[in-house]
Amino acid sequence: MNMPITRPEFTADPANLTFGADGVTVSWPQRSWTFHPIWLREQSREPSARDQAIGQRLFDAWRLPTDLQITAADLVDDAMTVTFSDGHRASYPLDFLLRESRSAVPDDLVGAPRTWDSAHAPSPRLGWTDVMTSDRSVLALADALAVHGFCLLTDGPTGVDDAEDIANRFGPIRRTNWGGVADIKVMADAVDLSQTNRELEPHADNPYRLPAPGYILLHCLRNDADGGDSTLVDGFHVAEILRRDDPDAFDVLTTTATRFRYVDPDTVLEHYGPLIELAPDGSVRRLRFNNRTEEPPALPAGRLAAYYAARQRYATLLHASSNTLVFKLEPGQLLMINNYRLLHGRRGYALEAGGRHMRQAYLDRDCVASRQKVLRRRFGMDLDHWRTSE
Amino acid sequence: MNMPITRPEFTADPANLTFGADGVTVSWPQRSWTFHPIWLREQSREPSARDQAIGQRLFDAWRLPTDLQITAADLVDDAMTVTFSDGHRASYPLDFLLRESRSAVPDDLVGAPRTWDSAHAPSPRLGWTDVMTSDRSVLALADALAVHGFCLLTDGPTGVDDAEDIANRFGPIRRTNWGGVADIKVMADAVDLSQTNRELEPHADNPYRLPAPGYILLHCLRNDADGGDSTLVDGFHVAEILRRDDPDAFDVLTTTATRFRYVDPDTVLEHYGPLIELAPDGSVRRLRFNNRTEEPPALPAGRLAAYYAARQRYATLLHASSNTLVFKLEPGQLLMINNYRLLHGRRGYALEAGGRHMRQAYLDRDCVASRQKVLRRRFGMDLDHWRTSE
Repeated sequence: MNMPITRPEFTADPANLTFGADGVTVSWPQRSWTFHPIWLREQSREPSARDQAIGQRLFDAWRLPTDLQITAADLVDDAMTVTFSDGHRASYPLDFLLRESRSAVPDDLVGAPRTWDSAHAPSPRLGWTDVMTSDRSVLALADALAVHGFCLLTDGPTGVDDAEDIANRFGPIRRTNWGGVADIKVMADAVDLSQTNRELEPHADNPYRLPAPGYILLHCLRNDADGGDSTLVDGFHVAEILRRDDPDAFDVLTTTATRFRYVDPDTVLEHYGPLIELAPDGSVRRLRFNNRTEEPPALPAGRLAAYYAARQRYATLLHASSNTLVFKLEPGQLLMINNYRLLHGRRGYALEAGGRHMRQAYLDRDCVASRQKVLRRRFGMDLDHWRTSE
Repeated sequence: MNMPITRPEFTADPANLTFGADGVTVSWPQRSWTFHPIWLREQSREPSARDQAIGQRLFDAWRLPTDLQITAADLVDDAMTVTFSDGHRASYPLDFLLRESRSAVPDDLVGAPRTWDSAHAPSPRLGWTDVMTSDRSVLALADALAVHGFCLLTDGPTGVDDAEDIANRFGPIRRTNWGGVADIKVMADAVDLSQTNRELEPHADNPYRLPAPGYILLHCLRNDADGGDSTLVDGFHVAEILRRDDPDAFDVLTTTATRFRYVDPDTVLEHYGPLIELAPDGSVRRLRFNNRTEEPPALPAGRLAAYYAARQRYATLLHASSNTLVFKLEPGQLLMINNYRLLHGRRGYALEAGGRHMRQAYLDRDCVASRQKVLRRRFGMDLDHWRTSE
């Protein structure tokens, strides 16, 4: 009972639809997609299906009969109206259907990454005061994190807990065993090598945590020691080089779970995962690299041989100067880093001539993404979600 | 140059070792394992390799030559001493090697889960005051979460924020857009169906968050409404039934990423993942099931057909009374739940006869695991880690 229905007069989003046992096929000029009957039924926003104020589902979707059929489908204005074999009737905006046909996995931030090497590195900057006072600037900051993986805030204050003011523009700061805003400086009772004057190779922060920090806020209070320059590497860029030039090594690093561990007198943190983690669609989702806390499991020797060779290849790329952005933070600046994508480090430094004092805070993935999406919604920008009550 | 070295006089942990190009093979009476040369080299705890106070690695492990060899290996007391082709020499306790040969993936909690159905459900209980005053009780609570997936604290206070006192016995409470300790009661301006009097099917909390809550603290202040009984299901038990009885459905649910979404005027939270998530060793690691916020992506119709059939099979098991523990929380009780393993719900309730007021807080995975491991270490119990400076 395939019934083609064409509405050539519908110019805003011209669509054509047919329906049969496997669902409704909607054809746009640029794309065609078949929507499964149960998928459409459980996406219904009708009052019997969803709480109209809250937007959450009111019926058990899993109880829908697996042989649910579509008995009628039609185009009405810019929506598709469907009747199901259980008698339910619902309407779906065509732009919702088009968007859903494309999006299998929600990015935690809206905005496609534009990867970079040192020769093509962007220099996203915003004023600290602008971020504190303007929601447009908060959105610009989130967008920079999505597209470039970092952003520098300039001309800020140098109070020890001022980073929390920036964090609070997104949501609750992430508290850990180190507290909220924590010191990065030479400490006599160091519990981490970041609290020494040693060079720190490019690394992701805290892959031994579950959850790992989503974003890093690195706030510079003082930086007139000799050395101590900051480094940034776009791990997404490096991972794609590896995928292209050595797909076997890429496969090994995406499928071998390694371990990370942090231990101090009050804390034992351990977690695991691949150095390069992929999203279900095969895109690079998250990077782990942290030499000083990596403790690979004692896998079979042959598997480890492949892992170590692949890791060396990858780490060599991560350490290449052609992939490394180097700059020196100034007091009052705050560097915000996407900790799933960028690796960061610093040069070693000597304290004879001056001091170096950073303060560091973390934010979670969903906290930054939520703020970005709420602001995009408020400013009338595109957003990958849809809700009856708005 | 395989050189067998046997030390029959070493009775505490009798071992035999041979070494060659692929590493050192250590043979215990019960087990034999080959350790890769680079693995041994990067596990070195010598002063040149690790900061002796901090325990973190001081050299770039990835720079080790991939053709690193072992030139000598010997048993000395209860340790193995190894010399490498780069001249480094290090010593490894045999019990460390035995443990590492077995452990590929660190459990976030120490303690093997013992799964249950309603006929064999355990009833782990601890006194609120004991947990507040005794570290042994905190450890017992963490152990119950590892083994049973939940624990009931009894005879506690009923102040609105008292749950945070229990949370603080582990570490910082997880703050979300809902704050720290949040209301679960009927609210006129509900943003979630939990804030109505509706029945809530067995579900994991907040799979739309990244990170999702690791543990739930559900504190009962009042519960004399008609209904409102609590339900718990051991998702690990149900997942293993599915794996055994319908391996195809199990495969579909472990490999299909579904989505979850929460939206309110100030918040947009979205994340994805399979309903049954496996650890690298194939064990069940984490469950997602949350009907009211699940928004599966519009996958190809054939794939969705398989997904919906598998989900129905799984959800039917999750809802079976034979798998469901039902009980009514009393004022002053606090139910702590492993949100990666157990699904929880409640019966609907009517407010004519009384009220129902719960307060809810979250803790992260690593926070509870760290506290458990620190306490085990303090009490001299086995711990899957090892550090020079102790």
